[in-house]
Amino acid sequence: MTRTQLVEQIFLKKSYLCIGLDTDLQKIPKHLLQADDPIFEFNRQIIDATHDLCVSYKPNLAFYESLGIKGWQALEKTMDYISKKHFTIADAKRGDIGNTSKMYAKAFFETFDFDAVTVAPYMGADSVTPFLEFKNKWVILLALTSNQGSKDFQLHHQLYEEVLRKAQNWGTVENLMFVVGATHPHQFESIRKIVPNHFLLVPGVGAQGGDLEQLTHFGKNEQVGLLVNSSRAILYAGNGKDFAEKARAEALKVQQAMAQLLLKR
Amino acid sequence: MTRTQLVEQIFLKKSYLCIGLDTDLQKIPKHLLQADDPIFEFNRQIIDATHDLCVSYKPNLAFYESLGIKGWQALEKTMDYISKKHFTIADAKRGDIGNTSKMYAKAFFETFDFDAVTVAPYMGADSVTPFLEFKNKWVILLALTSNQGSKDFQLHHQLYEEVLRKAQNWGTVENLMFVVGATHPHQFESIRKIVPNHFLLVPGVGAQGGDLEQLTHFGKNEQVGLLVNSSRAILYAGNGKDFAEKARAEALKVQQAMAQLLLKR
Repeated sequence: MTRTQLVEQIFLKKSYLCIGLDTDLQKIPKHLLQADDPIFEFNRQIIDATHDLCVSYKPNLAFYESLGIKGWQALEKTMDYISKKHFTIADAKRGDIGNTSKMYAKAFFETFDFDAVTVAPYMGADSVTPFLEFKNKWVILLALTSNQGSKDFQLHHQLYEEVLRKAQNWGTVENLMFVVGATHPHQFESIRKIVPNHFLLVPGVGAQGGDLEQLTHFGKNEQVGLLVNSSRAILYAGNGKDFAEKARAEALKVQQAMAQLLLKR
Repeated sequence: MTRTQLVEQIFLKKSYLCIGLDTDLQKIPKHLLQADDPIFEFNRQIIDATHDLCVSYKPNLAFYESLGIKGWQALEKTMDYISKKHFTIADAKRGDIGNTSKMYAKAFFETFDFDAVTVAPYMGADSVTPFLEFKNKWVILLALTSNQGSKDFQLHHQLYEEVLRKAQNWGTVENLMFVVGATHPHQFESIRKIVPNHFLLVPGVGAQGGDLEQLTHFGKNEQVGLLVNSSRAILYAGNGKDFAEKARAEALKVQQAMAQLLLKR
């Protein structure tokens, strides 16, 4: 998907919501466990209930890998089910030496047909650029993550700013986004001075406590430039037979807040 | 596998060789492509030809993931085929927020039965510690990698030293190793001042040009404390029907050099 197509979807739906598919057998409603493929059945109902409210879905690879081959089958079916109008993100946090990163890129962009993959920057340019060589595919590079541990190294001599400064030269605003956690809202202003035009993928709203209004205020640019992710708060809003309705209600709340925030200058 | 068991194997075999299973359909001998499962058939013959010369095997996950479900089946069969006396490393470079890292740990330590997994430190303590909670399982944390891009961030204010200093408190010498590339031999001395007793996994010998003698001289400790990886130089030493013999000859060369180096003080 191109940047133009993504921006179009955002204005059309008045939503910059990304729904994280962190689908966990321990957490999905019990009645689904009798289905042939409980993970896919859960995802299918969540997608049916939310597709008009979000512009992106982000399967979290760990949840699928932990189930082995069955997990990969569920992921394959989920990817086939999501419409091509949604921006799909493989949340995989990959990154390795050049020839290995190239294989990961093939896994996510060819074997699966994801639009984007999250990549960790620690190993530097040659671990990231192989992902950027695929046409109309995106890298979403970790800059400042939402978790407690983000303080351990990312704030060491403002490493995350160094990541933003260096990495923006490896790709363009058409194929490179950055992860910036909602739990650091005061940092959005300085981040926008370094990367005014890039899209930012923002985790940490919902379960992790980030504030949508604040991050939108400091992080939004002319083309919105934000994808705000919510996973657990939407997926597990209910745990009965009406879980999908409950998930929709939660997603609708977020989308309506976004529609309001998009009206503001 | 415990540290004691690993050290035992090293002294028994006079080898600290780890063979990286970066098995690539483009590079394996053509005649194998007719097999039911070419990837597994290649691995099986490599393992048969080298198991007495190495103490560890390291499947590189990217090469299996890029094949989708078939790749995971080949990996499963390969893991079943490797003897429990070999230290098995999932070279996966994972690391994410706590609940996600926990799922990756389950994938590699429970769904598969790897002894160790490589983890990227960028997201800090809570992205690494979930892997350390599994008994007799290991984290191998990226410190100073072997690639060109290691200079982009790892040397920024000596970030890799900060990783070594902080992370050694997250685990013990019984469950935490560090990746230090053979392409930085002069750094081994200062690294050993920070982590004298930890095992180091050393990539970058062979195809990437690191020097075994130098890194052993500066990196070895009382219990050896090194696992030196070689992938392509061994796997693709030949490309005919005798590829496994050629791989053995190459592994033997490395093992004999190691046996000599272990005699030195």
